[in-house]
Amino acid sequence: MNAPGIFITIEGIEGAGKSTAIAGVAEWFRAHGREVDCTREPGGTPIAEAIREVLLNPAEEDLVPPTELMLMFAARAQHVAGRIKPGLAAGKVVISDRFTDSSRAYQGAGRGMDRSLIETLAQTAEQGVSPDLTLLLDLPVDVGMKRAAARRGAGAHDRFERERHDFFERVRAGFLELAGQSTRFALIDAAAPIADVHMQIQTELSARFLLGGGDRG
Amino acid sequence: MNAPGIFITIEGIEGAGKSTAIAGVAEWFRAHGREVDCTREPGGTPIAEAIREVLLNPAEEDLVPPTELMLMFAARAQHVAGRIKPGLAAGKVVISDRFTDSSRAYQGAGRGMDRSLIETLAQTAEQGVSPDLTLLLDLPVDVGMKRAAARRGAGAHDRFERERHDFFERVRAGFLELAGQSTRFALIDAAAPIADVHMQIQTELSARFLLGGGDRG
Repeated sequence: MNAPGIFITIEGIEGAGKSTAIAGVAEWFRAHGREVDCTREPGGTPIAEAIREVLLNPAEEDLVPPTELMLMFAARAQHVAGRIKPGLAAGKVVISDRFTDSSRAYQGAGRGMDRSLIETLAQTAEQGVSPDLTLLLDLPVDVGMKRAAARRGAGAHDRFERERHDFFERVRAGFLELAGQSTRFALIDAAAPIADVHMQIQTELSARFLLGGGDRG
Repeated sequence: MNAPGIFITIEGIEGAGKSTAIAGVAEWFRAHGREVDCTREPGGTPIAEAIREVLLNPAEEDLVPPTELMLMFAARAQHVAGRIKPGLAAGKVVISDRFTDSSRAYQGAGRGMDRSLIETLAQTAEQGVSPDLTLLLDLPVDVGMKRAAARRGAGAHDRFERERHDFFERVRAGFLELAGQSTRFALIDAAAPIADVHMQIQTELSARFLLGGGDRG
């Protein structure tokens, strides 16, 4: 008697405000009577979180691009099998901070890894699961980097946050290209004031899940 | 002025005697004046060893087959870039306890993962490196399992060593199929007495690296 599961992914460059957006999406669905599971990539299960540690913690050794790519998809396969699929089967709204589009944007557009290889890995890792909605939080790279730096303070820098500006420009362009190819994406202006971003997201959710079915709350 | 690097891989099911064989191969090359680097998969670099930990240590969570496959190749890509390629470039004889053939036999023949996916991952991870010689230590599964159990005593059982007999039969058959397809393989009867196994290996090395060039010792 469950409502059907809904899978929502949140994408964007560093500093785009993904965490705040996820909290808003979760709140909206809970207010409409749905059970929500908020998760993240890479990670979301014990094994996938162990893989995340290998990915994000700088070692004395450089992580080579094919290793990075395959670790991302290894973690994703575990996340899909161990958390996303079971959540959807139980009728939950599963909200993931990043999913395959991040691999397309970061490893594909950003690092230039072969796109057909990425799609082969995606097909293997996703095991038939695909997002019902992807919120792309878009903003200029400078704004995102400034926000991310402010959030970190003088604290820890993970591998990706040390990456250069032009890399993030390629990533942003990669995300925008993806968003132009599928109606599964909603493009959110994440440079707007926070209340306005919140409103944009609520409008998308209402349009897609109140009128379009899928939500019974 | 280095002699050209030589890449040798040792393959076989558990209990086949890979460690003893590797020691013999290393000794043979050192006696012929070569510098040797003995390494293993999954592993061989700090990042690849961290991936090995994720693969071999049972967690409260089951590792799903696509995750296992992608972790194996993620570790391999790091191993090739960080150790095998540099070793070969420096003129060393690099001897690896397992390489891509183990993925073909264990994940392909053993677990039934798609072979074209495995070859795609192999091409990505190998970065142009391929073994000059693969010693396949072949023996009946019963003999191998008995040897592996004796070696462990009552001690730790890693994930793979707990696998069932029929799985190892598929793996053995997978290895034999590979060995029938390429002259890069030397099939060693690993059920023979240890002195005889040693002799078989020395005969192969002499035939391939003393007469055939590649060794200047």
